[in-house]
Amino acid sequence: MTAALSPGLGDTLGSVGEQGVLARIFPRLPAAASTVLGPGDDAAVIATPDGRVVITTDMMIHGPDFRLAWSTAADLGWKAAATNLADVAAMGAVPTALVVALAAPADTLVGFLEEFADGLREGCETLAPGCGVVGGDLSVSDTLTIAVTAFGDLEGREPVLRSGARVGDIVAVSGRLGAAAEGLRLLFALGAPDAATAAQLKLTHPAQVAAQLRPHPPIADGKAAAMAGATAMLDLSDGLAIDARRLAAASGVALALSGVTAAELAGGEDHSLLATFPAGTLLPGGFRAIGMAVPGEGVLVDGRQVTGGGWDPYSGWDGASG
Amino acid sequence: MTAALSPGLGDTLGSVGEQGVLARIFPRLPAAASTVLGPGDDAAVIATPDGRVVITTDMMIHGPDFRLAWSTAADLGWKAAATNLADVAAMGAVPTALVVALAAPADTLVGFLEEFADGLREGCETLAPGCGVVGGDLSVSDTLTIAVTAFGDLEGREPVLRSGARVGDIVAVSGRLGAAAEGLRLLFALGAPDAATAAQLKLTHPAQVAAQLRPHPPIADGKAAAMAGATAMLDLSDGLAIDARRLAAASGVALALSGVTAAELAGGEDHSLLATFPAGTLLPGGFRAIGMAVPGEGVLVDGRQVTGGGWDPYSGWDGASG
Repeated sequence: MTAALSPGLGDTLGSVGEQGVLARIFPRLPAAASTVLGPGDDAAVIATPDGRVVITTDMMIHGPDFRLAWSTAADLGWKAAATNLADVAAMGAVPTALVVALAAPADTLVGFLEEFADGLREGCETLAPGCGVVGGDLSVSDTLTIAVTAFGDLEGREPVLRSGARVGDIVAVSGRLGAAAEGLRLLFALGAPDAATAAQLKLTHPAQVAAQLRPHPPIADGKAAAMAGATAMLDLSDGLAIDARRLAAASGVALALSGVTAAELAGGEDHSLLATFPAGTLLPGGFRAIGMAVPGEGVLVDGRQVTGGGWDPYSGWDGASG
Repeated sequence: MTAALSPGLGDTLGSVGEQGVLARIFPRLPAAASTVLGPGDDAAVIATPDGRVVITTDMMIHGPDFRLAWSTAADLGWKAAATNLADVAAMGAVPTALVVALAAPADTLVGFLEEFADGLREGCETLAPGCGVVGGDLSVSDTLTIAVTAFGDLEGREPVLRSGARVGDIVAVSGRLGAAAEGLRLLFALGAPDAATAAQLKLTHPAQVAAQLRPHPPIADGKAAAMAGATAMLDLSDGLAIDARRLAAASGVALALSGVTAAELAGGEDHSLLATFPAGTLLPGGFRAIGMAVPGEGVLVDGRQVTGGGWDPYSGWDGASG
């Protein structure tokens, strides 16, 4: 059963209060193996045996980043975990912990928060076992807002940057391309946001809708890529076309791709991993070759320069349509 | 000159785009001595030579947490840094880095973001030299929202928890009590929010208004307290009455205070440090004794039990008034 955000009945954040809500949420959160000190004090403490820690932060906003007509609270928890875990993995690190700040209207059901915590737990347990939530913050806002900061351990390895690709490297990807965008297209095609119709779509197009609402980035392949000698890597959040151009620009090479479709190039939010490897590398995990780093600039597909095709949070969202 | 959030002229987040805004903000952000890898990749990397890292996260929302009629963008940057630095200090740690996520309307001036970055820099440089911003995220939202996650180094010491106070310990505080709440009272007393009147109040009551809009928590006293043997410590965010009760409850003692006024008990947002020390400790830094830990529960002032007096984000904010 899904708790509504603005219900008629039941305990709300306003009626239960911050401390009461936290007491109900904490037991549902995933534990982190790295925990030295968990939630409840002014700050948490995690172990960083490497002597360095990988840090990434990302905010999800109701409207531009998700719709409550489509996503359950558990979906949101899962996605908030998955997108941040992917950024940690893209450095070649193993995710160790998350902190989660959430702001919601005062009339939000506590049950909504409990389901959100369940989604965080399911996401961590599925995608990055051992990673858990070590702290957070609850606030009130008219706009449901989720801010996650994620941490990772490099285990003695150097971080895999965007800038290390060299001419002759294999270009490879692990994870889906374009599925999340196809899911979003299908959801928008429903017309007016409607939870029942969205639920129906989850049954008829489960892979595409799940790719959008509950992405499964290949977290373990981040470490696998680093161990296999990846020269550069990033998380595909804005689409292959844009993110591959970023890697190419940072590395001072062009990426010549083949066998990728327009939908695979344009689709964002897959949170798959794009990496480059020295020629001759046996590709690890789920990586498959899609091209080669060559002299030049930008991204070429079957020899033609790719332009455009992406997502900017300040121009990609039409508030009026959503 | 203060840039308005919703201006008539000038570059906006929507017109410049995320990457363009980031390029203009990065040079203004404070550098962190702990930086291994700064902004621009999927994640940042900081050094954690202790083998552990202190982590705290906090969200500030337009409305419940601040008003643009009162706070300049630089004030907001300062306060976002200060409140998180105080949580790190309250563990006995030295702040090393921040990541900052910000969501704002698409018509927000880039100049507003630049001033916000200036405030972050001024706050870090003044309160915690060496601490800086290593990463962040920009999003679009109808509600201006700031989420900061801060990090600290324990330098080989154990974290100072809320739960370590023992009967006979000195209770001491470093920093102001009640000034931030007095500043808020004065700002509310202005009636309708009005930037010009707020600016006037900054001239006539600078200490109180600054305590609210640009708090100066005694960050270095967190480490000083830990080195002096503090048995328990926390950041006074919700007021001495409530926060002292939290420390008392976590430690299984009562805190018997004397010489504190009702305004000092009730006022929140000072971000001063409340700590307990073994009897006979020479109090470090700016700490002054305000009482003793005794058998029992709760907080006593001049022998009388204190009840109430605090701030809950879900009940303490009247959206209609703000």
